[in-house]
Amino acid sequence: MRRAQSDAPIALLTDFGYRDHYAGAMKGVLASIAPDAVLLDITHGVPPQSIAAGAITLRESWRFFPSRTVFLVVVDPGVGTSRLPIAVETRAGARFVGPDNGVLSLAARDAGISRAVRLESTRHRLASPSSTFHGRDIFAPAAAFLSRGTPLGTLGSAVARIKPLHLPKPDGTANGIRGEVLYVDGFGNLITNISRKDVARLHSSFPGKQVSVRIRGGAPMKILNTYGEARPGTILATFGSFELLEIAVRDASAATRLGCGVGATVVARMARS
Amino acid sequence: MRRAQSDAPIALLTDFGYRDHYAGAMKGVLASIAPDAVLLDITHGVPPQSIAAGAITLRESWRFFPSRTVFLVVVDPGVGTSRLPIAVETRAGARFVGPDNGVLSLAARDAGISRAVRLESTRHRLASPSSTFHGRDIFAPAAAFLSRGTPLGTLGSAVARIKPLHLPKPDGTANGIRGEVLYVDGFGNLITNISRKDVARLHSSFPGKQVSVRIRGGAPMKILNTYGEARPGTILATFGSFELLEIAVRDASAATRLGCGVGATVVARMARS
Amino acid sequence: MRRAQSDAPIALLTDFGYRDHYAGAMKGVLASIAPDAVLLDITHGVPPQSIAAGAITLRESWRFFPSRTVFLVVVDPGVGTSRLPIAVETRAGARFVGPDNGVLSLAARDAGISRAVRLESTRHRLASPSSTFHGRDIFAPAAAFLSRGTPLGTLGSAVARIKPLHLPKPDGTANGIRGEVLYVDGFGNLITNISRKDVARLHSSFPGKQVSVRIRGGAPMKILNTYGEARPGTILATFGSFELLEIAVRDASAATRLGCGVGATVVARMARS
Repeated sequence: MRRAQSDAPIALLTDFGYRDHYAGAMKGVLASIAPDAVLLDITHGVPPQSIAAGAITLRESWRFFPSRTVFLVVVDPGVGTSRLPIAVETRAGARFVGPDNGVLSLAARDAGISRAVRLESTRHRLASPSSTFHGRDIFAPAAAFLSRGTPLGTLGSAVARIKPLHLPKPDGTANGIRGEVLYVDGFGNLITNISRKDVARLHSSFPGKQVSVRIRGGAPMKILNTYGEARPGTILATFGSFELLEIAVRDASAATRLGCGVGATVVARMARS
Repeated sequence: MRRAQSDAPIALLTDFGYRDHYAGAMKGVLASIAPDAVLLDITHGVPPQSIAAGAITLRESWRFFPSRTVFLVVVDPGVGTSRLPIAVETRAGARFVGPDNGVLSLAARDAGISRAVRLESTRHRLASPSSTFHGRDIFAPAAAFLSRGTPLGTLGSAVARIKPLHLPKPDGTANGIRGEVLYVDGFGNLITNISRKDVARLHSSFPGKQVSVRIRGGAPMKILNTYGEARPGTILATFGSFELLEIAVRDASAATRLGCGVGATVVARMARS
Repeated sequence: MRRAQSDAPIALLTDFGYRDHYAGAMKGVLASIAPDAVLLDITHGVPPQSIAAGAITLRESWRFFPSRTVFLVVVDPGVGTSRLPIAVETRAGARFVGPDNGVLSLAARDAGISRAVRLESTRHRLASPSSTFHGRDIFAPAAAFLSRGTPLGTLGSAVARIKPLHLPKPDGTANGIRGEVLYVDGFGNLITNISRKDVARLHSSFPGKQVSVRIRGGAPMKILNTYGEARPGTILATFGSFELLEIAVRDASAATRLGCGVGATVVARMARS
């Protein structure tokens, strides 16, 4: 017996952490309005108030969910101020609900924005919403109504454009690419803004040569296929599941070992040969 | 297709943390007895053995859940000793299952206790329960049976009264209120025992004057509507989602910045003008 | 209304942590292939790359789940190398999916292995699997198909034997047993490899005498029935929910107090009397 088509799954992504009841209170609201929707936690461990980290984890996960999933995304340092609460529909089918501060923008752009509204319908939020917890009072109700089939336009009036998030882009150099660390994961892997395509382009410009990678001027490394090709404890470069160049230490944390974090410089260039 | 009325959602709140299988083993027991119940994690990150923190997070979340939800609450430093395992029915519809050590009392009182029993039916617990893990062996089975519609009285005999938890109350002073920090959340916000009503009463006693707030004798602050009204990095006072006065730092941790925790003194008084 | 027999619950156990979207992306894949399966998180907090800790938490939890549960277990330091991805069927009904590095072996042996296959069917994995995230690309699809009733043999060819994990065993001494700490839980309890049976055997060899326990040559302790029998803050020995001897501190962390971890020596012997 399949669930009714109208109850789409709801995936949650927040920076609420795991100590308090904040994510739990949102689930209570979701279950009250959409009792048959499947709730799926992506993570509540986004670093507090880190819009970029939230946007990156959403971009890296949304495409693996069922196509009509409603993503409830709350990383919201400006809660209660003039930033808008919004909901977005996309050509890929995914819906995104959260603050218009850039956290939705990378995933929504990938999914193809077809329409966005500001959440203003008082019938689709809790009565007397607080000014500090829109996740519970405004975003969760909106996500639950979308899951049940409420049309997007019922929630509020159209917004012409959602706020973009501009991540730093890598620069080309004479014989390579200079990028930087965008994201540090829980294993301490350092994920950069240099894509597999960037490196492929480099290869095709310098046929027959090998690419070598350095972080913060350290020793040059070849790019391996996976972590396990390195000896335990050694530093390595690979294309991880983000399809981005990452610096890792086999069975340990590169962030700790190298003392590096977001913004550290990483250079890929053709090895002298 | 709605789920059958008899399978109420089960919400979990414990101090088991996220490292071990303890919460997972409870979910296995719940799913074995009540396979159609929706399981909703509130949090497993209550500070270890902190009955007050568990009681506060339960009080702040239960009302957002569907009315017949069964709350499975395990913060149980006295497991295996003489403290009773209990289940509570309330006039609001919510049911609470856990140890009778005060952790249920704030929420149960708010929901209006109509009946409580001690969990003594050996048919409604696992065979040979351990003396260290009643969450898995006694509380989870009881919650699952309640979710499926087993009447409360089947689980054991009535208890006349559940153990209360007495949180410190604020004191009135000549021109204000002296309270203290009750709870520190994962963002480092310091939640006090001074309510919005307490401050409204102060306002009505001193019409036309403004309230100012100090923590541990620090600089006086006005009360803002939300975090985002302060400049990033500054200390502020606001009424958060608990409807209690809280001390926060915009985009940072007040607990770390001020070196304060549970018990720190907070004073709200009429500003000289 | 019960769910169809073919959609078995899926229980997740990984070392992915709670900061990133890794566990979330797996849930998206599971929900895409098996939208009606109930997903149950055991934990994602296994210490990174700790195969032994993963194997122990799985052994301690699998038997509490519904009998046809599919366990999706990813602690996989060798991802992308020659270690096989496997699925195991057992006489108890449980199915296990994960890397063949020992992490499945303790539970699978307890459940009684009836058949194991390597995961090689390209129709039962994501297209173009990455070399760093088999949890999402290979293991999650296999678990979802098993949940929906796909026969094990469809996923790949039989493997004769899965890789065992050898935990250290306790040694008999003249008048006792010398064991060691196998696992440290999130409360800081030190779980050893000395079982309740081992101690019962000791008792029967020395009738009328009491067993005393020492860790790292510290003061001898009697074995209590539960944590709450000790005074707050004192060190104690008990048989916890693992049915193994554990060293704990009432309402505090034994690991922190004693500065002990995995491998610390624990001796149980007959007290002089």
